Amino acid sequence: MSQEMFQKERTLKMRERLIGQSCRLFFPQDPVKIVRARGQYLYDENGTQYLDCISNVHHVGHCHPLVTQAASAQMELLNANARFLHDNIVHYAERLAATLPKKLCIFYFVNSGSEANDLALRLARQYTRNEDVIVLDHAYHGHLTSLIDISPYKFRKLEGQKEWRCFVFMQAPLPDTYRGLYRRDHPNPGQAYADTVKDLIDEAQRKGRKISSFFVESLPSVGGQVILPSGYFPKVAEYVRAAGGVFVADEVQTGFGRVGSHFWAFQLQGEDFCPDIVTMGKPMGNGHPLSCVVTTEEIAGAFTANGVEYFNTFGGNPVSCAIGLAVLDVMEKEDLRGNAVRVGNHLKELLKQLQAKHPIIGDVRGVGLFVGLELVKDRVTLTPATEEAALLVGRLKMKHICLSTDGPWNSVIKFKPPMCFSLEDAERVSAEISHVLRVYEQMNNSGLTQTVSACLPLAPSLISSYEG
Amino acid sequence: MSQEMFQKERTLKMRERLIGQSCRLFFPQDPVKIVRARGQYLYDENGTQYLDCISNVHHVGHCHPLVTQAASAQMELLNANARFLHDNIVHYAERLAATLPKKLCIFYFVNSGSEANDLALRLARQYTRNEDVIVLDHAYHGHLTSLIDISPYKFRKLEGQKEWRCFVFMQAPLPDTYRGLYRRDHPNPGQAYADTVKDLIDEAQRKGRKISSFFVESLPSVGGQVILPSGYFPKVAEYVRAAGGVFVADEVQTGFGRVGSHFWAFQLQGEDFCPDIVTMGKPMGNGHPLSCVVTTEEIAGAFTANGVEYFNTFGGNPVSCAIGLAVLDVMEKEDLRGNAVRVGNHLKELLKQLQAKHPIIGDVRGVGLFVGLELVKDRVTLTPATEEAALLVGRLKMKHICLSTDGPWNSVIKFKPPMCFSLEDAERVSAEISHVLRVYEQMNNSGLTQTVSACLPLAPSLISSYEG
Repeated sequence: MSQEMFQKERTLKMRERLIGQSCRLFFPQDPVKIVRARGQYLYDENGTQYLDCISNVHHVGHCHPLVTQAASAQMELLNANARFLHDNIVHYAERLAATLPKKLCIFYFVNSGSEANDLALRLARQYTRNEDVIVLDHAYHGHLTSLIDISPYKFRKLEGQKEWRCFVFMQAPLPDTYRGLYRRDHPNPGQAYADTVKDLIDEAQRKGRKISSFFVESLPSVGGQVILPSGYFPKVAEYVRAAGGVFVADEVQTGFGRVGSHFWAFQLQGEDFCPDIVTMGKPMGNGHPLSCVVTTEEIAGAFTANGVEYFNTFGGNPVSCAIGLAVLDVMEKEDLRGNAVRVGNHLKELLKQLQAKHPIIGDVRGVGLFVGLELVKDRVTLTPATEEAALLVGRLKMKHICLSTDGPWNSVIKFKPPMCFSLEDAERVSAEISHVLRVYEQMNNSGLTQTVSACLPLAPSLISSYEG
Repeated sequence: MSQEMFQKERTLKMRERLIGQSCRLFFPQDPVKIVRARGQYLYDENGTQYLDCISNVHHVGHCHPLVTQAASAQMELLNANARFLHDNIVHYAERLAATLPKKLCIFYFVNSGSEANDLALRLARQYTRNEDVIVLDHAYHGHLTSLIDISPYKFRKLEGQKEWRCFVFMQAPLPDTYRGLYRRDHPNPGQAYADTVKDLIDEAQRKGRKISSFFVESLPSVGGQVILPSGYFPKVAEYVRAAGGVFVADEVQTGFGRVGSHFWAFQLQGEDFCPDIVTMGKPMGNGHPLSCVVTTEEIAGAFTANGVEYFNTFGGNPVSCAIGLAVLDVMEKEDLRGNAVRVGNHLKELLKQLQAKHPIIGDVRGVGLFVGLELVKDRVTLTPATEEAALLVGRLKMKHICLSTDGPWNSVIKFKPPMCFSLEDAERVSAEISHVLRVYEQMNNSGLTQTVSACLPLAPSLISSYEG
């Protein structure tokens, strides 16, 4: 095909030779070469179409023509840095402000979710003059030194590495009402989980430590597509603020209408709830490196008062902002939030029907197009079905459907497709899941699973969890 | 004009209201609104042309049509993440490898110079298992938490802020042969400055500390456009490696042929010299957020061996790499390195002629299109002419020439224009500098300087140093 420069085998060899092996390939034992994409569909070098159920970055659909046109037009005109006045950055900030509570009104544009979370940490520490941080267990907030330090998902795997961290860092239990400390049968899990944060704060204060911030994804993603119990954020915010800290909502994976009913996932916790800092990223530029931090006048004021300029070379440039504006336009024009509600509900309904048929499906949860399917070996013990989840993802890949696993045991199948995902796509993927599980159950019953497992192209340990 | 959405006054008000004030404007008291750019020329909302002498990011010229075309074509086709195989990332890595010593052959693509330097720090620490860092005095390596910690230029201004740093951090004297510890009359300043690093290492070792890395810009930029004495890097590398550390060359501002004679500024230190890690950024994507870390197989291997995936959402995506490839193509096609040699030499020659006429010009230095003009109140005491440098930049702005100051006292006028800067541009800017200095000297002689200073639109303290 003309869209290939090298044959796949050569591309793979060059990749192995030239690119750091820490940068892992999807399906490492049989990687996919993608040369073209449109909407929710990816195409490999032979023209085979894959259904993309995971690229939340390509929010309004891969290669949306209106986004490409906006980028090209602005690239032809100007792409200077934000030290010069330009309309795009202020227009874009104003459009974003309209989606947020009034209090969140000061914007900093950066290039990645990691840059946004690092800046949020700097803002929180400068404003509070405290350094300690509370995060959720199994959280992931980015790949930078400062963020690995507060991401149990990452640093826990760093065997033998010294701890460089010089501040106190606390992990609150993941408020997972399916398998966590407090479950759906608890009368008030939101309050109960918030109290676990309060306990950490009390303990820290007894030791004379001071909290700078509570950092949390509005819906924990690598934690396993967790939907937080109601009342959790307002209560935690109350405790954290009383202790002198600020509440940082990480919307890098969950923002921009993914949950359908609201523009931001933190808004699921009530119209009155307002974080002190919100970070945004992945879907913001539909693949273009564009991210943002928004905060209050007070916090921004404290950061300005330190007298040090914050200059981000590419942050808020006219091209990035033109792309961000185009993404907002497409979302409105194509009613993608409405689509997320409709398709997300239908998908959940289909998956719940599968749950009734397949005992391995322990839980189906989600809001909008943020959906998780948790596999368990046993519905009473909730033993994670890690291997089965990997086998399912491997089988679906053979059916040209891209899905991946997440959660502490990689036992949660996650859906976070481009927002143009259709009812038919939902039906196709649920039918294929049902088919794979049926075959698996038949083989399991006849003692054939071992053999099947050996024949599949993927060893579970080789499937990387997919924080992207 | 059709390129404006809001009138300038309104843009400014929106900017003040919506964008963090730590993100400063260029010429804050009379900011410039730029709506269009091409090559080395910027155009404001009234169509007034400004000569751009500072935008090193827009390396092959603002809005180069071949770069825009490459970006648009790839955006229409695919912009998936680097977990899928793609030709662009490996082709681009191979093209970059051809410019580097053979040993530097493993690439990590990221979105900004700051992300690159943070990753370099992680690589160095993982490989050496040490944590301490040596940098140069007045160095700047980025805006992230981990980099502010090693950037005296930034953290020194953070009055009253606690030191979060939990590793030992040492600052070696800036090897500035104009006003530093060892000057041009020294028989071997390269060796003498390298020995100051050796002294720091010895002192650290006496205290039982261990060096992870020596971090250095191949030509210190915010340090004042400093040209390092020959022999400095090889000697420092020898000392640092003997102490178990690695040598990190920060080429974020200086790479991609800016120095003309070589592709990388570290190559000015000899054909045999090879850093252990090189970071690159600003000019790489001609304004698009694209950066990179390259290192050796050994260091990359140690990073892989920690078992933790490095996933950078946007890093190395097909659009970024297509843009990077187009920048390399334009550089070759238009012989921009040759142009940097020719125009840079001519500019230096013209500035040296001015130096002979104007006592305030203490030093003219540079390689290729990386040039500094240092102003002093007195050629014997070398007292920095900070206020005069600000006045000169302000006056040149009124002549529609964009320049800025740098160095510990903001007394160095720096040139790092797009690489298509022409002989005529060099003549125009040197003629205007000469004119401003002549007027200034006349007024100074007649005691009018105070009045002039009061009439100028810029107070020196309001001109921000420009690390961009």
